[in-house]
Amino acid sequence: MGLFGAAPKKVEEQQKYFSAVDGIKRLYKSRIRPVEELYKYQAMNSATLTDADFDARPQVLLLGQYSVGKTSFIKYLLERDFPGSHIGPEPTTDRFMAIMHGPTERVTPGNALAVQEDKPFRGLQQFGTSFLQRLECSQCDSEILKSVTFVDSPGVLSGEKQRIGRAYDFVKVVEWFAQKSDLIILLFDAHKLDISDEFKRTIVALKQHDEKIRVVLNKADSVSEQQLMRVYGALMWSLGKVSQTPEVKRVYISSFWEYPLRDGSNVELFEKERDDLLRELRDLPRYAAVRKINELVKRTRYVKVHALLIGHIKSLMPTMWGKQSKQQWIINNMREIFRSVQREHQLPMGDFPNIEHFITCIKDYDFSRFPKVDMALIESMDQVLARDVPAIMNDFPPEREDAAQMAR
Amino acid sequence: MGLFGAAPKKVEEQQKYFSAVDGIKRLYKSRIRPVEELYKYQAMNSATLTDADFDARPQVLLLGQYSVGKTSFIKYLLERDFPGSHIGPEPTTDRFMAIMHGPTERVTPGNALAVQEDKPFRGLQQFGTSFLQRLECSQCDSEILKSVTFVDSPGVLSGEKQRIGRAYDFVKVVEWFAQKSDLIILLFDAHKLDISDEFKRTIVALKQHDEKIRVVLNKADSVSEQQLMRVYGALMWSLGKVSQTPEVKRVYISSFWEYPLRDGSNVELFEKERDDLLRELRDLPRYAAVRKINELVKRTRYVKVHALLIGHIKSLMPTMWGKQSKQQWIINNMREIFRSVQREHQLPMGDFPNIEHFITCIKDYDFSRFPKVDMALIESMDQVLARDVPAIMNDFPPEREDAAQMAR
Ligand SMILES: Nc1ncnc2c1ncn2[C@@H]1O[C@H](COP(=O)(O)OP(=O)(O)OP(=O)(O)O)[C@@H](O)[C@H]1O
Ligand SMILES: Nc1ncnc2c1ncn2[C@@H]1O[C@H](COP(=O)(O)OP(=O)(O)OP(=O)(O)O)[C@@H](O)[C@H]1O
Ligand SMILES: [Mg+2]
Ligand SMILES: [Mg+2]
Repeated sequence: MGLFGAAPKKVEEQQKYFSAVDGIKRLYKSRIRPVEELYKYQAMNSATLTDADFDARPQVLLLGQYSVGKTSFIKYLLERDFPGSHIGPEPTTDRFMAIMHGPTERVTPGNALAVQEDKPFRGLQQFGTSFLQRLECSQCDSEILKSVTFVDSPGVLSGEKQRIGRAYDFVKVVEWFAQKSDLIILLFDAHKLDISDEFKRTIVALKQHDEKIRVVLNKADSVSEQQLMRVYGALMWSLGKVSQTPEVKRVYISSFWEYPLRDGSNVELFEKERDDLLRELRDLPRYAAVRKINELVKRTRYVKVHALLIGHIKSLMPTMWGKQSKQQWIINNMREIFRSVQREHQLPMGDFPNIEHFITCIKDYDFSRFPKVDMALIESMDQVLARDVPAIMNDFPPEREDAAQMAR
Repeated sequence: MGLFGAAPKKVEEQQKYFSAVDGIKRLYKSRIRPVEELYKYQAMNSATLTDADFDARPQVLLLGQYSVGKTSFIKYLLERDFPGSHIGPEPTTDRFMAIMHGPTERVTPGNALAVQEDKPFRGLQQFGTSFLQRLECSQCDSEILKSVTFVDSPGVLSGEKQRIGRAYDFVKVVEWFAQKSDLIILLFDAHKLDISDEFKRTIVALKQHDEKIRVVLNKADSVSEQQLMRVYGALMWSLGKVSQTPEVKRVYISSFWEYPLRDGSNVELFEKERDDLLRELRDLPRYAAVRKINELVKRTRYVKVHALLIGHIKSLMPTMWGKQSKQQWIINNMREIFRSVQREHQLPMGDFPNIEHFITCIKDYDFSRFPKVDMALIESMDQVLARDVPAIMNDFPPEREDAAQMAR
């Protein structure tokens, strides 16, 4: 039984979350995606979901100034070295590194990684080759990686050195990873508190992901108690100034590396804090599963409305003459059409697309070639929402009390 | 030997600071004030300094939400109850209370206090009777009061309750006391962190006294370690947001009341923190003495320049005819007059008054009635600066290392 505290029962629980996600993936592919394709939902809205979107493990992003212990933190959770990792007192990690599960050790360079269909990193191509050369995927067989993917990042340096060294927009890349992550951990070093301007900018840029952010005051056992309080106080002071929200960020004060906690009067506190953070990590699969299910439910609703709208528009089109003028009439009367579809099928207005956006998306199509409403498909989607998704959620292990507590 | 840590030697040292202040008071009265009076310095600038201005002990102002332990803090330092004090879990202190040394116990109501020549509270009359009814002076015989005067304040309540209850401008009164104080202690309660809007406004209003402010996180021994960290973090977070300066405020984490520290893993920290704050209090007489000496030196320089200017203007006036036009000419050429006085006596430009302000102050006087320059008086003032003040400072006990450290 490892660090990750996983009693066999817990591992089983986590597997349940992943099979739940697997279940909704199957629902999506068999019952929703065909409707999307038929009614061209992907062309007009967001891209079709791929297997990688479902299969991706919950992702934890690590950020911090150099040498605060980001790589050591991951190594500690993995209970092993991972290929390509470097740990040292000088700036060591010089690239972004996704650490994922794999049966054998393997390092994949960024350019190759960003084109792999089964990995969720294709979006990174937008940052160009100069960035992709600073990206790597490390795979190995560690228990925790079956539940979580980590993203290690190059340490932020202070001042000029930084700007010269980088051939890509660090903050933009961090934002991209933050968007895809389920938890963002900001690490600070208790015996060298340093918050450079670039790191401040990074924190500010993450403000829309506030609820994902956790702060770790690392190496807390390597300074005196009074100094720890000063450093912790200074950290909160600065975070309060930087942060736009009134809610205080949760800070875990402890030490996360492979060596035991140094003896001292705060050992007990450090242990509790560490356990709290490990619990948060352990609960990630549950939260990630719930989030994915929510997203699928929302998407299914949108697809349903989309299909009904397209089918209704088709039904208004003449079979022979006057197609062009009818199409224009439809565009001009879209608001009325929305309303009648809403009334006819008793749909919530909130599930409807933005009207201008909808018009922009469809106006270049020939409406007479739209498919008709297929009520069997619609009813099948209704079933997904009314029966299949609830059935999957019923299979969830009951939320334990400590998890509920942790969710604050 | 009391709490205040005063070994007999320390008490002696503190007495030296007070006799130093006594020395400069005598210098002021015999050598500076006569010049001020002769050349009407007080009429044109700040009021004559009174005995109370010199005799006043360094003053410590306590502020905080209700029930954080302000009154208990003072009682702890006094090692005794003081007349008129109330301590309790509900809002108790309902007035500002100056706690000063006196051979016998005595409570003086605000209206009487504010007219006493020998007390430094006459300025409080500006806040009117409705405030003076909420002011009191408590005197008793406690060792620490020979070195420090405390000002206890009514606890800040949250919300509406507050506004209704008060018949005076709390923030304005606090600003007045802050101006006269040498140290401002903001108390917070570790098991009930509460920073109401009014208290926030108060803190913001104190920003020009930033270097006098110390923060105490009180009752730190009555919560668990993890909770203490949360509360302390939240406090720093909020202070960082409220404060306008980048410098982190020093926070003393401990418990200040008559009972011993509760046993726990942080006892040692709490003891150190408490000792640090007590040391700051113990060093107040030194800092207050240095400050008063600095102020006297500054004032003496201004008075000298003022006397030379007035005397020079007098020397320009005709004895018989053309007084009015000459007076106007002088006013029009004041810049030139300043320059020639500066050159003649080799004075630093920084010691000269603002030229417009100076003109406004003197223009309604008859310049021909100004006194002549009396070089004996001027030289006597020069002697104060060159010989007497340095002699007094030479008598200072050598600054101890820990005091120097503490000054950060
Ligand atoms: N919890 C800890 N307590 C004490 N020392 C630590 C701890 N974690 C890491 N260190 C030490 O700090 C140094 C930096 O560690 P590490 O390389 O993991 O930091 P990093 O944040 O990944 O740095 P970089 O940004 O350069 O990649 C190493 O010498 C490591 O041994
Ligand atoms: N250091 C301490 N640890 C634990 N409890 C304390 C401490 N100091 C004071 N208390 C308790 O807190 C309560 C409030 O104390 P006290 O009256 O001194 O506060 P206060 O700030 O003066 O309140 P008010 O603003 O109402 O005058 C009392 O019950 C007191 O016994
Ligand atoms: Mg690293
Ligand atoms: Mg009180």
